[in-house]
Amino acid sequence: MSRIAVLIDSMFEDPEYALPARDFTAAGHALEHLGLKKGAEVRGKRNEAAVTIDTLVGEALVDRYDALFIPGGYSPDKLRAHQEAVEFVRRFAETGKPIFVICHGAQLLISADTIRGRTITGWKSITRDIKNAGATYIDQEVVEDGNLVSSRQPSDIPAFVKACLHKLS
Amino acid sequence: MSRIAVLIDSMFEDPEYALPARDFTAAGHALEHLGLKKGAEVRGKRNEAAVTIDTLVGEALVDRYDALFIPGGYSPDKLRAHQEAVEFVRRFAETGKPIFVICHGAQLLISADTIRGRTITGWKSITRDIKNAGATYIDQEVVEDGNLVSSRQPSDIPAFVKACLHKLS
Repeated sequence: MSRIAVLIDSMFEDPEYALPARDFTAAGHALEHLGLKKGAEVRGKRNEAAVTIDTLVGEALVDRYDALFIPGGYSPDKLRAHQEAVEFVRRFAETGKPIFVICHGAQLLISADTIRGRTITGWKSITRDIKNAGATYIDQEVVEDGNLVSSRQPSDIPAFVKACLHKLS
Repeated sequence: MSRIAVLIDSMFEDPEYALPARDFTAAGHALEHLGLKKGAEVRGKRNEAAVTIDTLVGEALVDRYDALFIPGGYSPDKLRAHQEAVEFVRRFAETGKPIFVICHGAQLLISADTIRGRTITGWKSITRDIKNAGATYIDQEVVEDGNLVSSRQPSDIPAFVKACLHKLS
């Protein structure tokens, strides 16, 4: 069983959080939700899913978690405006432990300058940002590069979850 | 009097469209709204402003316009996922005519690869993307670099509008 840090804010893409969260939990892993305000409820952009923030990201210790999961939607754009969220991602990436990003999730990796030389996918609107950050972009449902698992969009979720769970096994 | 192309989609930052639009019109300029579906109504993220798309961006001719205005919010993220919107921005930038961007508006300039070597500002979440695109980022209410006028956020609107109007005079 792994403890997964979920870095999330409001306006996340509902199924990109809800479906992996369901499957990670069913597989016996524990989720801890990191965000900008402890105890706050953040909701998805479709208003179908809600998450309560367990831990302030600025106070979270990377050693506590076995993996980092960043759902997409506009949540990553909101989080990357806050230095403490970017700094957590930067420190977590240094550990080499698994990182799972889907859709706009890679925006936080870009802000943390952690994808230089890596191979990754993401939502089509950010392909230029991914390339400009020094990474190789591949347009496929799931891309694995060492500890990094990435996907593009909600239709990729089954392949994404399968790859993430394999990384945790 | 100038004809200004406004490149816009849903989830724009309401005042970043509405206030400049009001002031540009009051100064005698004409606005033409370019978007992804002609005749569609697109609404701001705060649901305070609505815009009807006059012209399909894929059919718009750059020669028709004297300036390009890209409001912020999540509208630029939606537009940059469509190649015809990125292509319009690229072709417009080649003309050297005035370009006005605020908040996330610079995301479209990044996708069009048009800010390499330029000096620009934008919403704080995209500062890394701006730098990675080869531009110099300055954190101030309005930045002017030749034909390019940029601002960061709603509180910058008065300075932004003043600089834009000066560029059109």
